[in-house]
Amino acid sequence: MSRGRGILFVISGPSGVGKGTVLKKVCEDMKDISVSVSVTTRKPRAGEIDGVHYNFISKNRFKELVESGGMYEYVEVLGCGYGTPKQAVDERLAKDEDVILEIETQGAEKIRSVRECVSIFIVPPSLSELKRRLEERKTENSAQIEGRMAKCRQELPCAYDYDYVVLNDDLESCIRKVDAIIEAERQKVSRNIKNIDKIIFG
Amino acid sequence: MSRGRGILFVISGPSGVGKGTVLKKVCEDMKDISVSVSVTTRKPRAGEIDGVHYNFISKNRFKELVESGGMYEYVEVLGCGYGTPKQAVDERLAKDEDVILEIETQGAEKIRSVRECVSIFIVPPSLSELKRRLEERKTENSAQIEGRMAKCRQELPCAYDYDYVVLNDDLESCIRKVDAIIEAERQKVSRNIKNIDKIIFG
Repeated sequence: MSRGRGILFVISGPSGVGKGTVLKKVCEDMKDISVSVSVTTRKPRAGEIDGVHYNFISKNRFKELVESGGMYEYVEVLGCGYGTPKQAVDERLAKDEDVILEIETQGAEKIRSVRECVSIFIVPPSLSELKRRLEERKTENSAQIEGRMAKCRQELPCAYDYDYVVLNDDLESCIRKVDAIIEAERQKVSRNIKNIDKIIFG
Repeated sequence: MSRGRGILFVISGPSGVGKGTVLKKVCEDMKDISVSVSVTTRKPRAGEIDGVHYNFISKNRFKELVESGGMYEYVEVLGCGYGTPKQAVDERLAKDEDVILEIETQGAEKIRSVRECVSIFIVPPSLSELKRRLEERKTENSAQIEGRMAKCRQELPCAYDYDYVVLNDDLESCIRKVDAIIEAERQKVSRNIKNIDKIIFG
């Protein structure tokens, strides 16, 4: 059943909880859904690909987007801008495709305040398990890990404001649950009024 | 994650849409969920099994249940009572098990008015396809089929009052969608406050 309009999903969760891996698999599993890539003014780090991890844009272009009202949300961190441009998201939604935004809790709050979306927060089994995973990645020193853990303790209470909370204790099970949320949201009556009309009135 | 309390799912849909087949498979697929069987005062028809299709009870017992406030909903059709006793449902919900009620639109409306539940309406691709399926079953004559179609035309507009609408154009896909709705509802933040507390506060 075509719904005429896509659904905007907003996914957050602490660093190291496995959001990236989950979303990659979810977009492979499900049809008509894709992750919308954020823009940033910072320089790409080693291994980061333009258009995949971020769309890397100039400070001027970023300023233009902000001033023309072209961003759903944006933040500045250490002098660099990060944001979600409206156009790419809206174009896909208008084509009846669903869009996932992987954003931080602050950005999610902004988006919820300006438009309808379905928000999912991915949680680790415990803070100690999250720390273990960050240490296992071996990409950060212990001070950086402490920084991430402090940020996580700040972000976790935002989970109460989301629509869904998904535990990532087992990757396969976490992916299956996010798939289920997307599938379920597509069946909401409020999104299928025209389809019901069609069955009743032909 | 244990939620401490089960979810009550209410499933309706016109006769012949395949509710019974879908629910049987859903209960096989998913853990901790079962269909709660209605009670009736009418005599079992050929092939109907007590405790499976209905719990067949006496008119006196039915009256007792109604008068003691022991029914979530009940109706009388052609002098026979049909109803959903509270006790069997509540006991399972209290044990953190989910319960599915397969009930008619009138009963669903009553339940929604007295307690929180998640309601799903299963729809056929079209009225003509539903008629074709009823004819194919060869269990009813054409007058009976006309009666069922008239009832379906009455019931279908109730779909707008449900939370979810699932199209049964393909049995496997319909089952997968109902499974997804159950899985998604289990991840709702509102049902997992204690689990989030536990991750944050240990």
